[in-house]
Amino acid sequence: MTADTLAPVDNAILNALKRVSTATLTTQLLNRGLRKTFLVGVRPLNPASASFAAPAYTLRYIPAREDLAVPAVWKNRDYPQRKAIEAVPAGAALVIDCRGELGAGAAGDILIERLKQRGVAAVVSDGALRDTPVLAAMAYPVYCAGAAAPASVVALFAADLQVPIGCAGVAIFPGDILVGDAEGVVAIPRHLAADVARDGTEQERYERFVQSRIKQGRSTFGLYPPDEATLAEYKTWRD
Amino acid sequence: MTADTLAPVDNAILNALKRVSTATLTTQLLNRGLRKTFLVGVRPLNPASASFAAPAYTLRYIPAREDLAVPAVWKNRDYPQRKAIEAVPAGAALVIDCRGELGAGAAGDILIERLKQRGVAAVVSDGALRDTPVLAAMAYPVYCAGAAAPASVVALFAADLQVPIGCAGVAIFPGDILVGDAEGVVAIPRHLAADVARDGTEQERYERFVQSRIKQGRSTFGLYPPDEATLAEYKTWRD
Amino acid sequence: MTADTLAPVDNAILNALKRVSTATLTTQLLNRGLRKTFLVGVRPLNPASASFAAPAYTLRYIPAREDLAVPAVWKNRDYPQRKAIEAVPAGAALVIDCRGELGAGAAGDILIERLKQRGVAAVVSDGALRDTPVLAAMAYPVYCAGAAAPASVVALFAADLQVPIGCAGVAIFPGDILVGDAEGVVAIPRHLAADVARDGTEQERYERFVQSRIKQGRSTFGLYPPDEATLAEYKTWRD
Amino acid sequence: MTADTLAPVDNAILNALKRVSTATLTTQLLNRGLRKTFLVGVRPLNPASASFAAPAYTLRYIPAREDLAVPAVWKNRDYPQRKAIEAVPAGAALVIDCRGELGAGAAGDILIERLKQRGVAAVVSDGALRDTPVLAAMAYPVYCAGAAAPASVVALFAADLQVPIGCAGVAIFPGDILVGDAEGVVAIPRHLAADVARDGTEQERYERFVQSRIKQGRSTFGLYPPDEATLAEYKTWRD
Amino acid sequence: MTADTLAPVDNAILNALKRVSTATLTTQLLNRGLRKTFLVGVRPLNPASASFAAPAYTLRYIPAREDLAVPAVWKNRDYPQRKAIEAVPAGAALVIDCRGELGAGAAGDILIERLKQRGVAAVVSDGALRDTPVLAAMAYPVYCAGAAAPASVVALFAADLQVPIGCAGVAIFPGDILVGDAEGVVAIPRHLAADVARDGTEQERYERFVQSRIKQGRSTFGLYPPDEATLAEYKTWRD
Amino acid sequence: MTADTLAPVDNAILNALKRVSTATLTTQLLNRGLRKTFLVGVRPLNPASASFAAPAYTLRYIPAREDLAVPAVWKNRDYPQRKAIEAVPAGAALVIDCRGELGAGAAGDILIERLKQRGVAAVVSDGALRDTPVLAAMAYPVYCAGAAAPASVVALFAADLQVPIGCAGVAIFPGDILVGDAEGVVAIPRHLAADVARDGTEQERYERFVQSRIKQGRSTFGLYPPDEATLAEYKTWRD
Repeated sequence: MTADTLAPVDNAILNALKRVSTATLTTQLLNRGLRKTFLVGVRPLNPASASFAAPAYTLRYIPAREDLAVPAVWKNRDYPQRKAIEAVPAGAALVIDCRGELGAGAAGDILIERLKQRGVAAVVSDGALRDTPVLAAMAYPVYCAGAAAPASVVALFAADLQVPIGCAGVAIFPGDILVGDAEGVVAIPRHLAADVARDGTEQERYERFVQSRIKQGRSTFGLYPPDEATLAEYKTWRD
Repeated sequence: MTADTLAPVDNAILNALKRVSTATLTTQLLNRGLRKTFLVGVRPLNPASASFAAPAYTLRYIPAREDLAVPAVWKNRDYPQRKAIEAVPAGAALVIDCRGELGAGAAGDILIERLKQRGVAAVVSDGALRDTPVLAAMAYPVYCAGAAAPASVVALFAADLQVPIGCAGVAIFPGDILVGDAEGVVAIPRHLAADVARDGTEQERYERFVQSRIKQGRSTFGLYPPDEATLAEYKTWRD
Repeated sequence: MTADTLAPVDNAILNALKRVSTATLTTQLLNRGLRKTFLVGVRPLNPASASFAAPAYTLRYIPAREDLAVPAVWKNRDYPQRKAIEAVPAGAALVIDCRGELGAGAAGDILIERLKQRGVAAVVSDGALRDTPVLAAMAYPVYCAGAAAPASVVALFAADLQVPIGCAGVAIFPGDILVGDAEGVVAIPRHLAADVARDGTEQERYERFVQSRIKQGRSTFGLYPPDEATLAEYKTWRD
Repeated sequence: MTADTLAPVDNAILNALKRVSTATLTTQLLNRGLRKTFLVGVRPLNPASASFAAPAYTLRYIPAREDLAVPAVWKNRDYPQRKAIEAVPAGAALVIDCRGELGAGAAGDILIERLKQRGVAAVVSDGALRDTPVLAAMAYPVYCAGAAAPASVVALFAADLQVPIGCAGVAIFPGDILVGDAEGVVAIPRHLAADVARDGTEQERYERFVQSRIKQGRSTFGLYPPDEATLAEYKTWRD
Repeated sequence: MTADTLAPVDNAILNALKRVSTATLTTQLLNRGLRKTFLVGVRPLNPASASFAAPAYTLRYIPAREDLAVPAVWKNRDYPQRKAIEAVPAGAALVIDCRGELGAGAAGDILIERLKQRGVAAVVSDGALRDTPVLAAMAYPVYCAGAAAPASVVALFAADLQVPIGCAGVAIFPGDILVGDAEGVVAIPRHLAADVARDGTEQERYERFVQSRIKQGRSTFGLYPPDEATLAEYKTWRD
Repeated sequence: MTADTLAPVDNAILNALKRVSTATLTTQLLNRGLRKTFLVGVRPLNPASASFAAPAYTLRYIPAREDLAVPAVWKNRDYPQRKAIEAVPAGAALVIDCRGELGAGAAGDILIERLKQRGVAAVVSDGALRDTPVLAAMAYPVYCAGAAAPASVVALFAADLQVPIGCAGVAIFPGDILVGDAEGVVAIPRHLAADVARDGTEQERYERFVQSRIKQGRSTFGLYPPDEATLAEYKTWRD
């Protein structure tokens, strides 16, 4: 379904990505022709803990049908929402396609505490979560588009795991690399992760140089983006 | 994933359902506790040909990623959108989850002409279709939520076939029975089809009696819904 | 609750209003400082029968609560939706506040046929109606913002009658004068009806003069709006 | 209009409800067949003071009409918005139907300070409030869907008090029990308050047990929801 | 502001573009990397007269301010809306940026009749128009996203002419080539008009061949898109 | 294009306006017939630094066209977004018309740091900004409707500077006075600035008196708004 390889992603790459802002990463993806990479409207519940880089493990919801979407379904260990909690690999991020539904929480504090205990890297939803006051106080990266007390089955039914999904307008394939900071979450196609990490790291270094010059009162002209003279100056600064 | 059996649906049931209005069918489903059964905002392009009852064959789109969602993908016979056109069984309805995207057409006149030639019963999308002036002139049941000239890959990428989908706010499982008329489309869980056909047929008979009395100037009180006296009168009328 | 008097409205005024377009009426209301008078997005189901002027009789819905909003409620003759059908005075228009809900029909063909039989002037809803294929074929003014097969109780519960409502963004008080044409519906505060009828009739006469001149190839400058010379020419044309 | 009795609600029940999270309360209501009980998008301005349980006193707005919705209307002590401020009983919550309007504030710091002085339990609006920086610093439960500096009459006109309303998609009848926490607000039909308080309290006790086990590293399988062995373990823990 | 040249566009190119469907034109633009070219939600009022190809003449609205956006402004011949009516060159299309406002009509029957008299090719708006029943009966290409009786000043104020605008999500520069059919309107960057006309004409020829084969019962595989054998067959058919 | 004069605004007026809340300012504008003055949904990123009063310098975006809206455009010193950064006068506020686009950031931390260095008073956008975690930590008034990591060209293209714009539903002309506090931003027509400053200052004084009385337990009746006795009492308090 996708040309992305599923070879493991080097931890060094994930660590590098985690140090680059989502703003820089989206620019690197734009440089490669990709404009739809940022999960619009998806925000961290606890900005102080909002930092991760991890491969995506996907959960897909469809709308609830009243006879199927009932609390009794949670007893079924193969029900995808409950299966996911015990199946997401440590180090991966659980990313949930809620089709933007804001009237029910895709998951709550108990399930997410279990994910944290299991070493899952983060939880990302394009809908709402529940128990958000508890989640906002957890030292754990959790992102969503809203807060809703009702359980997921009030409006959603879990359909399957590890299929390509849409999330806040972005296509996400299992194994794509998600990176989050206090601004939000970007999805990086798996085969671009290494290049984006390398070039993003360099871009951030240049922007630190720029910020230092801006704070000295310098004009943006010739600096951001740089002209030849500034590039030379930067190379001296960098080395 | 669902308790619905996948046994064949009797043609007599499909024929009965096709003669019942979607208004009546949604009332029968409400009587069984189901409120989310009508595809809100999905309308027929050609109301004069808007009538069908058929099991659902599902196609699922996710948002486009610019490197994957390109015309070249159409050369791949396993690309789900193109595979669907040759794989939907005759007598089934192709129902497409576009996540409500109105900026690109899920399919156009050539693909839909092929479906018609193959004996597919209908096409239903919760997004837009393209070549809608041609489709509106076809004697074929085609339903959508908008008209958009751009090809699907402008905004959508086909992810898979025959999985549970959401469509215009309704959960649809492969094999559920879709029924369409000039008002729109209702999704009937497969295991309820026979009962809904039987009771919907009887409800329509009663409503024809009601309409005849309303046109004679009778009050709705005691008639709609009926009191005991009216029920007796109806039984006489019916027999 | 409002300074509007509730004295009867002269039929001559209603007849005059019915001959003026909603475009002209909204301009007359703008001249009196009122900008929110047109029911945005509310369209006639049968444009060929879309013409009426009548005082408003209001029905107000709130969201459905699953235990109360069930078909059994229709047996209660005091349930506001059912009571309204037999209580709207002949010559009045039933105007329904659905809070813009498009997932259920505020009323259907049987109830609306009864209203037509009773001499009710029109039906207006800012939500959906059901049985719209039948309604679109009726020689009767029916306006709504969508088509939805499910019965009203799927999403709505009738709260009361003859209270001030909002409808498609417009405040409507019982007794306000609603006027509809093939473009849509305007709500005229009752105390302004006579003045608006008089000035709207004169405005339309002037615009017929303008159209005749435009079709002769004349510029809009000095004509629309008129300068002194054109006003003199118009007075000659008119007399 | 509702089967709810209007007998007083025992303070012990209100106190119990206040100790249960809105997440738990919506699950208890779902267990009783009610899915539309949470006010979607309505958030506390001051999460640290966001806790209350109280019967609802309702205020209903309709859209503004420019000649009626003017500051002069505030001089009329019967104008529902102003009457409400002095009429809501101490211990009740003022809940305001703004039809989701976000362009004007349903009330501001002066009126809400008065409500606090009078012992009113909370203020809840599905639209915006004004003077939100002041309200966010008050030790008082205030919930809304947005912040807007303009006075209510810029977009809204108060229609009446103590009628059934819709608020953020939920039906609320006068006397229904509203409960709020830092996540948001749930509306409990009055006749269910005692049962929901009892069962919600028990559910929370079980979930505290679950959280303790999850933090010890236990799987959710068999625990949440519990199997027979876990239930036995829980009973021992509880007693 | 744009690299587009403003050299005249050959009438032969406009005539060719007018014979190509908007569906085909958007595919040609997608082939050139452009995905945002179709005016989503903009539909013809009279599908039978919905065909044109013309350079864009732009009018830009901003939101109304109550003291400036009043009928008296129409007396000013330099007010951009009124100036536009007499200034759009014959053969050009007037395209109006309403920012999607649907509560007021960007123009009405008198102004549009004048444009028709003057030989202006078409009128396109991403908002509403007024007097739509009259416009729907005119033999003239008029496109919009809604119908609203109120005059433009109820919600809009004309800011300027012949600047780059957004229209239904698409960037349009003065002189870009707009093409409309019964599906809607596509904006073609001026410098691409000749190439798109040539390749679109060829694409349509191939699709006529495809349709003839589909109607003979042929599979889409190898035909649409074509394999080598089909391409050879097509060349024979074409020549 | 506007009757506003462009004479300098006295710093005393700006300082007075900065001390008045946006709630009070919108009431003063409502008293003068203006209802659309508050930028709905535009919030400060750092409420602790959210205070300014300054004349508007406008930047206008249109939707992105993929061939023009690319990072290379930033090298062009006449590209309006980049030109604006060096051209906004010290003491003015940069206000950006993003047409409500939330999928890309109108500007980011480097450009806004430069504006701060240059003495620009504030940045206001009706779309998103990027690098919002950095901006939220800056001691600088920055307002927007969302956070989005992608650079502006992902969805927007800068069209021009210093033209009238729409921003969050409000008409803003270059030189209008923008005032922001922790609630949001209000746009004051330039010619009204002095009057609004004077009357707003007096209104705030009265409301301080009201708050002192409310906190003493006094009723709102006769106090807010005041009757004659209260007005006399206020005059004594004030003097």
